[in-house]
Amino acid sequence: MRSDRCKFLVFLLAMALAAPALAVEEGGGTARARSLILFIGDGVDDHQLTIARNYLYGNVPGAAGFSFDRFEARGAAVVQTISEEDGSTPVYVGDSASGGTAIAAGVVTSRGRIATTAKTDRDVPTILELARAAGLRTGLVATSSITDATPASFVAHINLRYCEGPGEMQGVPGSFRAGCPRDEIAAGGPGSIAEQIAASGVDVLLGGGTEPFSQPTAAGVTPLDQAQKAGYTLVRNREELLGGEAALPLLGLFGPGTLPVEWAAADGARAETMRVAENGEAVYPAPQTCVPNPRFGERPTLEEMTRKAIDLLGAGGARFFLMVESASIDKQAHARQVCGQIGETRALDRSVQLALDYARTHPETLILVASDHGHAAQIVPIPSLFAPLARRLGPQYPPGRVAVVQMPHGGVMAVSYGSNQGYAEEHTGTQIPVFAQGPGSEAVTGLIRQADLFAVMRSALGLEAPPSP
Amino acid sequence: MRSDRCKFLVFLLAMALAAPALAVEEGGGTARARSLILFIGDGVDDHQLTIARNYLYGNVPGAAGFSFDRFEARGAAVVQTISEEDGSTPVYVGDSASGGTAIAAGVVTSRGRIATTAKTDRDVPTILELARAAGLRTGLVATSSITDATPASFVAHINLRYCEGPGEMQGVPGSFRAGCPRDEIAAGGPGSIAEQIAASGVDVLLGGGTEPFSQPTAAGVTPLDQAQKAGYTLVRNREELLGGEAALPLLGLFGPGTLPVEWAAADGARAETMRVAENGEAVYPAPQTCVPNPRFGERPTLEEMTRKAIDLLGAGGARFFLMVESASIDKQAHARQVCGQIGETRALDRSVQLALDYARTHPETLILVASDHGHAAQIVPIPSLFAPLARRLGPQYPPGRVAVVQMPHGGVMAVSYGSNQGYAEEHTGTQIPVFAQGPGSEAVTGLIRQADLFAVMRSALGLEAPPSP
Repeated sequence: MRSDRCKFLVFLLAMALAAPALAVEEGGGTARARSLILFIGDGVDDHQLTIARNYLYGNVPGAAGFSFDRFEARGAAVVQTISEEDGSTPVYVGDSASGGTAIAAGVVTSRGRIATTAKTDRDVPTILELARAAGLRTGLVATSSITDATPASFVAHINLRYCEGPGEMQGVPGSFRAGCPRDEIAAGGPGSIAEQIAASGVDVLLGGGTEPFSQPTAAGVTPLDQAQKAGYTLVRNREELLGGEAALPLLGLFGPGTLPVEWAAADGARAETMRVAENGEAVYPAPQTCVPNPRFGERPTLEEMTRKAIDLLGAGGARFFLMVESASIDKQAHARQVCGQIGETRALDRSVQLALDYARTHPETLILVASDHGHAAQIVPIPSLFAPLARRLGPQYPPGRVAVVQMPHGGVMAVSYGSNQGYAEEHTGTQIPVFAQGPGSEAVTGLIRQADLFAVMRSALGLEAPPSP
Repeated sequence: MRSDRCKFLVFLLAMALAAPALAVEEGGGTARARSLILFIGDGVDDHQLTIARNYLYGNVPGAAGFSFDRFEARGAAVVQTISEEDGSTPVYVGDSASGGTAIAAGVVTSRGRIATTAKTDRDVPTILELARAAGLRTGLVATSSITDATPASFVAHINLRYCEGPGEMQGVPGSFRAGCPRDEIAAGGPGSIAEQIAASGVDVLLGGGTEPFSQPTAAGVTPLDQAQKAGYTLVRNREELLGGEAALPLLGLFGPGTLPVEWAAADGARAETMRVAENGEAVYPAPQTCVPNPRFGERPTLEEMTRKAIDLLGAGGARFFLMVESASIDKQAHARQVCGQIGETRALDRSVQLALDYARTHPETLILVASDHGHAAQIVPIPSLFAPLARRLGPQYPPGRVAVVQMPHGGVMAVSYGSNQGYAEEHTGTQIPVFAQGPGSEAVTGLIRQADLFAVMRSALGLEAPPSP
């Protein structure tokens, strides 16, 4: 992370000095969009969208699809990731860190990296940093910890996503958590993700994360202390967020890490490994019904966080950049929780609707909906297309876990989780959909690279190109 | 199939009588496109496309993507299928028959049905029939048997796709092949798919199918006899097709059923069930290399069939409707043959390029690329994202079959087939991509229903709406 820190800071300083010249003037200026709201559905691909749309709206689209199904522009983005070891060999499945970095900074990197280059470990400026340097207000909203890979990619620079708090910088042997010793403050680095966020100056930060923000540094202070010292107002529950105590700059932490999801399967139903009855027939699990998650608690929803962020950032007609992540579409897919996936996709949809409502009165707003990588869940036939052959060839059923969902619009939908027999499902390497609405949306068309979204956003906001890393 | 046959035939007759009035006039007329070339990639979804593009072009898109990646319009289509039993309950995974019928005739039906309605078994007019009735030349090209579900959906009306030849009308107990007794000629029906094709008057028919076309009817004649009696020139190999013997109407049958695919894995490599080594590590199969299929034989490629069809149909400036199907993307995905999938996607890509070449000199040509349903193959991480946890949680690997592919542009790509542990992989229920280029392409945007493509095509060609079924 260190080699180009100076060049990078000089660039950001130059941007900040140039900020007045970059502001949108009435009828002119370099920017096409005054403000930009970027949504990231973590782990969203065509298949995960279809699963949720089938449940929420039936499989008849048109007026009754997602808010972003009706956006004026739609493209597909190739997810690109490279090997950390040689810094160039393609790797065909990404993660939230490499995907977040591609979107936030326009750079193809290796999995696990936060706005740094593979192998060479250089910091790369992010769209949020460019926007802030140009005088825009900035915000990050997520249903994960605000230190998780997606929001972190917009505001921090570190070699490993798991260095979320000061206590995690040394890593945990035999796990994902290899540590980030070079980035420790004591080593002249910028510190953990939480420390970097506390020092970021981002105007609105809403999500989970009390746990990493409470880890003390070697000097005995926590990122929370640092944030409050830097002037952040801290809110910790729905009432504080919505009740008028919120003021800029605002740090809202509504749980230790990933926030509880909005929906769950009734009676704790889970995707199950299929079994074969004594008569040789494949036995599917009983259909699940999706219900509000009883453990959601007194937290704001993604929709409420998004509304508050837009209200605060846009107050007084200010320009802003806001990233909103529905993080647990991914996390619930890893955990084979189809109702969880559906509910979090619904949260994304409703939050995008709020942005559309804002854009109706503020038409110079570009809204993007993107994703970081594909995921494992697949809608499969129930019973198998080959069930008629069972007498001759034996039972036909998916080898992984299967969830069957009772569908509000009729019938049942079987969802197979078949990418890993072990701990959790895997990300997949499919191209991902991208949706755009507003000034600059025409650049989202056909097939693009995920990293092209950085240039789309930069160009729409009229921000200068960063120095090449 | 019978109830509305009369109404349907009267409509087609009326269309034929009105044909001169529907022809495109210089500078006017109701049609926006003189001709339409529809490509169907069987089983194509975003994920199957990514698998093939990664291999063929690397995972850097732009100029080096598929020909249709650069089309001016792109949308997504929801695949809709309903239950045969009650004729209305949604079923969330389709097949080539229901998908073909949706595209060809604009009607949502049950799996297995060819241009007939679910439960009520009414015939529904197809875009090919409307085009032919309006005086356009027509053609069907496929790498499957020309009697297989996708081409059949454009030209035949029958309750079950497996009634391909006269000998299959009674079905096979305990299999998919339940039979079509009501459609037998002896029962007053139109006969098997091959018999219906022989009587169709379609100008160009190219694919496999000598087997169903050689089954004798009760009267002792074969569909091949019927076709020749109806005036078809028969060609049986590449030399006859390309050597100048081809003339309209043309029936080219280049194999008994599905034609051999263009690519295969070297040394007969297959996707394999993962195994765990004695040290507890997951062992992936050795990487496959894709090579030309040594068993392809003296057959025309899809590209060669497409070129001949366009040459013959477009000769003399005639208007035409042509459907070209790369059928074995699906069949190779069922069989877990990733090199086969990639090679057949390449064949689709190259055939679409030919259509683009034609459209350069004939700009009033609408080109569509669509799909009938999604498929099972998924790009997964190699090793698992959770491999670092193996010591604590045991080995982490996909539960289905896995193929590892040596990639020409670097690295290896692991593909998981995890939808069925038994006979073959399943179709999946994902939305599918749709691409359009040329006059009328702007209707392919955002999210549509698969069945909307029928209206898109009808409107582009200026064909009258059929009577409601």
